[in-house]
Amino acid sequence: MNEYKNLYVISYDIPKDRTRNRVSKVLEGFGQRVQYSLFECRLNNTQLQMLKVKLMKLINNNEDSIIIYRLTPEAQRFVEYIGLKKHFDEDIFYV
Amino acid sequence: MNEYKNLYVISYDIPKDRTRNRVSKVLEGFGQRVQYSLFECRLNNTQLQMLKVKLMKLINNNEDSIIIYRLTPEAQRFVEYIGLKKHFDEDIFYV
Repeated sequence: MNEYKNLYVISYDIPKDRTRNRVSKVLEGFGQRVQYSLFECRLNNTQLQMLKVKLMKLINNNEDSIIIYRLTPEAQRFVEYIGLKKHFDEDIFYV
Repeated sequence: MNEYKNLYVISYDIPKDRTRNRVSKVLEGFGQRVQYSLFECRLNNTQLQMLKVKLMKLINNNEDSIIIYRLTPEAQRFVEYIGLKKHFDEDIFYV
C-alpha cells in the first residue's frame, strides 16, 4: 500500500560547518533545498521517521536546532515568495 | 470586527548584513524569531499585507529570497523540534 506523503518544511540553525554540511547532505537525499538552510521534503511517515533518526544522530542537541513543519494540502496552496526564488539543483551547496 | 489571525512561518536568505538586519528588525515587530533566519508571525490579512509591503521595499529582488508559509490550525498541531529550541527574547539578534 502506498503510504500518503505530506509536504514538510525543514529549517535548521547549525553553527558548525561540518555538521551543517552533513545535515544538508542528508536532507538533499529526502527533498529539495529551497533556501540556504531550508528544505521542502515530500515524505510518508516511514520516510519522516527515518529522516528524523538520521538527523538526530548528526546534530549536537546543545547548539543545533532543526524545526519540522508539516504543510497540509490547504497550507500548501498558500506559499508566497518575495524576491528571488532560488534554484539549487545546479550548484551543489557546500559551505 | 476582529479579523482572524493565521500563523505564518517566514524564512529569508539575504546575503547582505545590512538588508538582513533591517528585514529581521521589521519581522521582530510582527512576530517571534525562532531560528536565525526564521520567524513565526500570527497575523490577520491586513497585517500580512502591511508586512509584505515593508519587506518588498527593503529587499533586492535579484539576490534576496523570502518565503512565507501559512500554517493552518491542523498544520500548527504538527511542529517538531530536533535539538535546541532557541529563545531569542533576551539577546537582540544583530548580525
